[in-house]
Amino acid sequence: MKNPSRRRFIKTAGATAMLPLAGSAGFASKPKTMKNIFVHQVYFWLKTPESKDDIHMLIGGLQKLATVKTIKSYHIGHPAGTPREVVDGSYAVSWLAFFKTKADQDAYQVDPIHKKFVEDYSHLWSKVVVYDSVDA
Amino acid sequence: MKNPSRRRFIKTAGATAMLPLAGSAGFASKPKTMKNIFVHQVYFWLKTPESKDDIHMLIGGLQKLATVKTIKSYHIGHPAGTPREVVDGSYAVSWLAFFKTKADQDAYQVDPIHKKFVEDYSHLWSKVVVYDSVDA
Repeated sequence: MKNPSRRRFIKTAGATAMLPLAGSAGFASKPKTMKNIFVHQVYFWLKTPESKDDIHMLIGGLQKLATVKTIKSYHIGHPAGTPREVVDGSYAVSWLAFFKTKADQDAYQVDPIHKKFVEDYSHLWSKVVVYDSVDA
Repeated sequence: MKNPSRRRFIKTAGATAMLPLAGSAGFASKPKTMKNIFVHQVYFWLKTPESKDDIHMLIGGLQKLATVKTIKSYHIGHPAGTPREVVDGSYAVSWLAFFKTKADQDAYQVDPIHKKFVEDYSHLWSKVVVYDSVDA
């Protein structure tokens, strides 16, 4: 392989596979394990959680943040409405970003786009919790 | 399209795209937004966090849990070692599962495989925090 970046991202039972639902390949028969990734998961609680404007403003900020080059894929979410004792649905906005490596996430932390995001939007939030995970 | 399940999972700028790094297509030039998904993120704290055996046991349990049919893809992780004030790296194991719909996650909750997982492994953990997110 000439391009070392063409390494397997998703694998199952030793076979290279696309992420299910991606493109036109449809479902695979088994769920796929995601490997060789850095998972950066952030939950935001807002100072004015009842303000739809503030929520939309933060989402807009995250969409700009998503342009950081080392982000491989991302999801911007809100609570799914699944009330159970162990579920924390009190946050306003979730930000899930996948990186190829820890170094790529380190680069994202100091990227000017990330710094500008914090500068422009941190007045909106009262609390942020971050969980960073790598393959167990 | 005959199969309604063949819908777009990852899209960017209106174009159907694979998840970056998947298969042989290599990198796309822009990060991809993940859409039309249900993100189920769980963090486990263990009663005996220093026990590598307990961690491996729980990971083994999650690998069995991953066989629940409605799970589209998943990641089993541990803290990435990114000490910052906002980062919670105190959990032992993370479990990230993607579903197509909220109904699919509801089905997972009552799936016999999930019930058996809780039955067989809940003695290991002292705390579980779950965050469920859908597209904002």
